Amino acid sequence: MAKIAVLGYGVVGSGTVEVFFKNKENLEKKAGQELDIKYILDVRDFDDSPYKDKFVKDFDIILNDPEVTVIAEVIGGLKFSYPYVKSALEAGKSVVTSNKELVAAKGAELLTIAKEKNVNFFFEASVGGGIPIIKPIHTCLEANEIDEIAGILNGTTNFILTKMIRDGMGFDEALKIAQDLGYAERDPSADVDGHDTCRKICILAALAYGKHVYPESVHTEGITKVTLEDVEYADSGGCKIKLIGCAKREEGNDISIGVFPAFVKDDSQLAGVNDVFNAILVRGDATGDVVFYGKGAGKLPTASAVVSDIVSAVKHDKTSRSLTWTDSEQSFVRDFDDFTCADYIRVKGASKEAVVAAFGKVEFLSRKNAPAGELAFITPVMSEKDTVAACEKLIGADILGRIRVLDY
Amino acid sequence: MAKIAVLGYGVVGSGTVEVFFKNKENLEKKAGQELDIKYILDVRDFDDSPYKDKFVKDFDIILNDPEVTVIAEVIGGLKFSYPYVKSALEAGKSVVTSNKELVAAKGAELLTIAKEKNVNFFFEASVGGGIPIIKPIHTCLEANEIDEIAGILNGTTNFILTKMIRDGMGFDEALKIAQDLGYAERDPSADVDGHDTCRKICILAALAYGKHVYPESVHTEGITKVTLEDVEYADSGGCKIKLIGCAKREEGNDISIGVFPAFVKDDSQLAGVNDVFNAILVRGDATGDVVFYGKGAGKLPTASAVVSDIVSAVKHDKTSRSLTWTDSEQSFVRDFDDFTCADYIRVKGASKEAVVAAFGKVEFLSRKNAPAGELAFITPVMSEKDTVAACEKLIGADILGRIRVLDY
Repeated sequence: MAKIAVLGYGVVGSGTVEVFFKNKENLEKKAGQELDIKYILDVRDFDDSPYKDKFVKDFDIILNDPEVTVIAEVIGGLKFSYPYVKSALEAGKSVVTSNKELVAAKGAELLTIAKEKNVNFFFEASVGGGIPIIKPIHTCLEANEIDEIAGILNGTTNFILTKMIRDGMGFDEALKIAQDLGYAERDPSADVDGHDTCRKICILAALAYGKHVYPESVHTEGITKVTLEDVEYADSGGCKIKLIGCAKREEGNDISIGVFPAFVKDDSQLAGVNDVFNAILVRGDATGDVVFYGKGAGKLPTASAVVSDIVSAVKHDKTSRSLTWTDSEQSFVRDFDDFTCADYIRVKGASKEAVVAAFGKVEFLSRKNAPAGELAFITPVMSEKDTVAACEKLIGADILGRIRVLDY
Repeated sequence: MAKIAVLGYGVVGSGTVEVFFKNKENLEKKAGQELDIKYILDVRDFDDSPYKDKFVKDFDIILNDPEVTVIAEVIGGLKFSYPYVKSALEAGKSVVTSNKELVAAKGAELLTIAKEKNVNFFFEASVGGGIPIIKPIHTCLEANEIDEIAGILNGTTNFILTKMIRDGMGFDEALKIAQDLGYAERDPSADVDGHDTCRKICILAALAYGKHVYPESVHTEGITKVTLEDVEYADSGGCKIKLIGCAKREEGNDISIGVFPAFVKDDSQLAGVNDVFNAILVRGDATGDVVFYGKGAGKLPTASAVVSDIVSAVKHDKTSRSLTWTDSEQSFVRDFDDFTCADYIRVKGASKEAVVAAFGKVEFLSRKNAPAGELAFITPVMSEKDTVAACEKLIGADILGRIRVLDY
């Protein structure tokens, strides 16, 4: 019999308890033993809950109970989760979490403690919600060197972009609908400014390349500057605009990494990923492109990933099957000035001749009812710093928009 | 140090050896110990191979060498593979295989032996080539009840259908190109008649539902009757034609299962899967739809899955981490007469009134230059036997084509 504690009874926490008890019999068969949730930690009272006897408010009760061998942390943030998870691992308990902020900020440290204590620290739910991605990269693609990873990792921004693309809705209006539907927070900045995507691509990059990547090292742009004009030009170029987190292996074990809105071609497996869905493309040297698609958030998908990790932690009790990556100086993360791709640029007050003189051979795009003096074009593949320098050559012109163009 | 033997040095076998030695250092890090391929079994001579000292022609050398703990079977077929794999497992060696025919025919028996001997029998490469699907279903989606699985599981037929859809090429011409490119065998029947897809959906269904499903129990149709007229009507209905293997959980722990060409809607995640790519959609009760996409065949993708399984088998030496399913009477496989879906039907010599009288409310489709007297329509969702009965009501008419319509 394995006893489990769930920290936090919010959306994911209550989903975890729900999925656990709904499928308990099946989970026990898979774990090879009886399972029970002994404690649920929350500061609030849930007197009407069928699980009301399990609620505790003091983490130390859980920490000091030797019967509890697996803890599911679904509080989010760092303030409580970090000390709780750290002390749980140090006490020799396995931890599973859906908390990307925690993993992106403290993953290397927590994995090291787990290894030392011969317990597990699993976090399948931290990226892609219910989409299996962490374990498949770790255990199924291990015969590959991973050349690139690129993902649509945030459902909220993908919903907003889908509304803009499909319904011609402006950013503000689409955001409001996302908020009304509960997809976006009242303060939407973690999503729309790209920070959530950044944490997730950091986790995937650490997993693929074996070294912790801190969010602060990653160039991160959100979608707030994407306009309907950009959407129209993308359409005329046979592309969709998606918020992409991507990481790429470079020579000398360096990596390039970034988060930004990007044009992806209509026939890309990422272009058809709409609404709140997520997709992650992994490019292996042997297997080529593999794509994982599904619901990247939501109560039950995320909870099902947490519960799977609980079962894995129970099965692998007393052996450390955790992934590993090492802490690192961030010197292997290339300066974003050297990031190389094509760009879409929309400009006012520049002649075609001036554009060609600054960028070389470009592909001009068109849209209906474009105002006089507006030009839009796709640049050749060039480095970030060369693109910035070329833009500066368009003296007197106004850069109205710039979005990178990726080739997945 | 773990010593490995590779049985068969054809396309996948030579790829396995290539991927193994290319990434050996990394694989050893992941396996936590040194690795070597000690033997390669093949009846042919490879005197120019850098691995020529490893070749043997007598399986007993491998079987009787206690140093060999993991065997990779990549011969294919049943004649040699079945006795070799069975005796290897009985001798306490773990086996990994890419051989879907073997797993679909003998999986339950071989898994039982593996369990008894406390060794592993892994077969990630048997479905979806380099796409991780077996392990993710087994270890990542285990908190879900799997409601349905549907896949484009055969690259050859998907290539042919893509040529028909994109280039308006007839079946025979598209098949010839596939043969010229090496995607299709001289005798293409295993692919185009659906048998390969059938084996793969049997494996996935056994994994999802815990009981062996024998290919003989599965209604299987290929793509040889699909015409360009069908492709045009599909297009007018906003659909693509794909060869689908699908299995669905029904009441009372029964399953429905079948292999057939099907209309899928253009906005389905399966519709955009082109050329030799495969995709598998798994519908879980908690996680919703999850799709796995990638190259379903080919030397290096398949080899990379074999090599990953080798590493897993080495890591889990002396513990049986194999999946399990039980052998079974096939009584839980529902009669295909009860399979329920909508149908596309193309008919000559029937009036619209007669069609509506036979089928009820249908959606009529159109195509350019349809000859007089031709009708095409989508039926309501109804059982196979009711569809057949309704077709028989169209007395004097000629059924030119019939393709099921799926809703993924």
